[in-house]
Amino acid sequence: MTTPRPDAPAPLYTRLAIIGCGMVGSSVARAVRARGLAQEVAVFDPDPQARARIAALGFAHVVSDSAEGAVNGADIALFAAPPLSIVPAVRALASAFAPGATITDVGSVKAAIAEGLADLPRDDLFIIPGHPIAGTEKSGPDAGREGLFEGRWTILTPDPSRKDAAYAAAVERLARFWEGMGAQVERMDDRHHDLVLAVTSHLPHLIAYNIVGTAADLEEVTRGEVIKYSAGGFRDFTRIAASDPVMWRDVFLANKDAVLEILGRFTEDLQALSRAIRWGEGDKLQELFTRTREIRRGVIDAGQETAEPDFGRERTRG
Amino acid sequence: MTTPRPDAPAPLYTRLAIIGCGMVGSSVARAVRARGLAQEVAVFDPDPQARARIAALGFAHVVSDSAEGAVNGADIALFAAPPLSIVPAVRALASAFAPGATITDVGSVKAAIAEGLADLPRDDLFIIPGHPIAGTEKSGPDAGREGLFEGRWTILTPDPSRKDAAYAAAVERLARFWEGMGAQVERMDDRHHDLVLAVTSHLPHLIAYNIVGTAADLEEVTRGEVIKYSAGGFRDFTRIAASDPVMWRDVFLANKDAVLEILGRFTEDLQALSRAIRWGEGDKLQELFTRTREIRRGVIDAGQETAEPDFGRERTRG
Repeated sequence: MTTPRPDAPAPLYTRLAIIGCGMVGSSVARAVRARGLAQEVAVFDPDPQARARIAALGFAHVVSDSAEGAVNGADIALFAAPPLSIVPAVRALASAFAPGATITDVGSVKAAIAEGLADLPRDDLFIIPGHPIAGTEKSGPDAGREGLFEGRWTILTPDPSRKDAAYAAAVERLARFWEGMGAQVERMDDRHHDLVLAVTSHLPHLIAYNIVGTAADLEEVTRGEVIKYSAGGFRDFTRIAASDPVMWRDVFLANKDAVLEILGRFTEDLQALSRAIRWGEGDKLQELFTRTREIRRGVIDAGQETAEPDFGRERTRG
Repeated sequence: MTTPRPDAPAPLYTRLAIIGCGMVGSSVARAVRARGLAQEVAVFDPDPQARARIAALGFAHVVSDSAEGAVNGADIALFAAPPLSIVPAVRALASAFAPGATITDVGSVKAAIAEGLADLPRDDLFIIPGHPIAGTEKSGPDAGREGLFEGRWTILTPDPSRKDAAYAAAVERLARFWEGMGAQVERMDDRHHDLVLAVTSHLPHLIAYNIVGTAADLEEVTRGEVIKYSAGGFRDFTRIAASDPVMWRDVFLANKDAVLEILGRFTEDLQALSRAIRWGEGDKLQELFTRTREIRRGVIDAGQETAEPDFGRERTRG
């Protein structure tokens, strides 16, 4: 059991319900417990084995055996489930939420969630979709970490049709909640979020899954060879392509339009690159490869990558 | 100045000449010095600033101001230059090599090098192309590390037309040299090497360069946004796409056929994946995303990835 830090702020919420308690959900639970951001943390996960494990890990005050039980009396309910299951889960609980509760989530796709909840038959809730840009290729409650959100961005996509002061106050409170977990918070239009994430997250995952699949299916090069010589760059793709299959299936289905749009640009560029190789246009290749270095410098300068570890096995390639 | 380890084997070579002393060349120099694998390490780099830096770093016994000077009296000459400059560099030194010298390299493409040296007017040399599967996205003599090759594979692609015992002995000696640096050594046909590396290294780099280029050119998403939210997966690609532009230009030009072949498979698979997203075929997506996890397990089981660091910033995505 963790006790709040001595310098922790007063709790922002009385009872936080977390629905879906895998890597991200359990990281929220851990961070909220450690930092005293809610008086009580109640979690529900549909998998009984996960619930038993969560109880053993001890980072929640309450492990409910129903979603209704978890949200009962909660002034904030956070859904940390694969994107396509968030809307049905929230709708199924429509009558169970406490009056005035904030309903939020951590899904990697935002417009589909807002649309799916637009006609929820409750006008006394604050629905504020959210997305912490943090996570790993690991899954399950054991994979969560208290510090997961430290120095990372969390994007909130509030409903632009809600002009009331109470909604604005609920958004501000939710922003302070994420800041309490160490995140920086940005507000954004949900469709723009989905396009930005299609570039910075969804396409990279799609490409990684694809390249690992291509390599696994070759006949001329065995799977053993692919694994044995993976330090040349391929290994980094295997890490990304080990991410949760259900979650990523949902991301691509729920963000289809933006993903296909960005994939189209990627494919056009790849064709041009392929032609430059075929025609032996070394200058074109070198120009692109020089330009991409600038982006890397930007990533490091923006603190989105800390000083890299000494390169032993982890970083080698060539 | 490093002194040989107490348990170091007797030197395998009298004088090692390293031509091109960037990240990989300087790692060889450091490893050979530290492990006493050659009595003397002489290096040459065409860049005067690099030579000054190498002299200051002190990992070589001799910093020559000409390639001829470095290979003078060397019983092994190792070329650690971008692939397309290796053949011209070796040919230019044809008359300078000591009789009986081993001529090797660390280039990521092997058939083009063997072909380019097939008619070298010297029959008293042992030409044994090689490739350590190790490196990072960093460049230059400062980026080298003594332990770079520890636990990694080095592939040698000996000339199959050389059936003489002296050549076999030279190959064996070169294998022991790499083993002395901590590598495991595999012998392979050069064309097969180029196909394997097209999969495990060249295509991953091509894709990473391409995706970073695509992201940088978008109008709807700013470069600042791409950088800010790069922790969702994109960041890993920026690291790969920061690799040396000249070296990688050469790799794609020198291994054009294998790269285009593998790229063709990748593109076919990507079209199928794109179609599955467009048609909402969740089962197909989930099946692929589950299958790719097995490859990841293989990479970890084969020791090509050590236990991963705790995920703070470095590993996060989502």
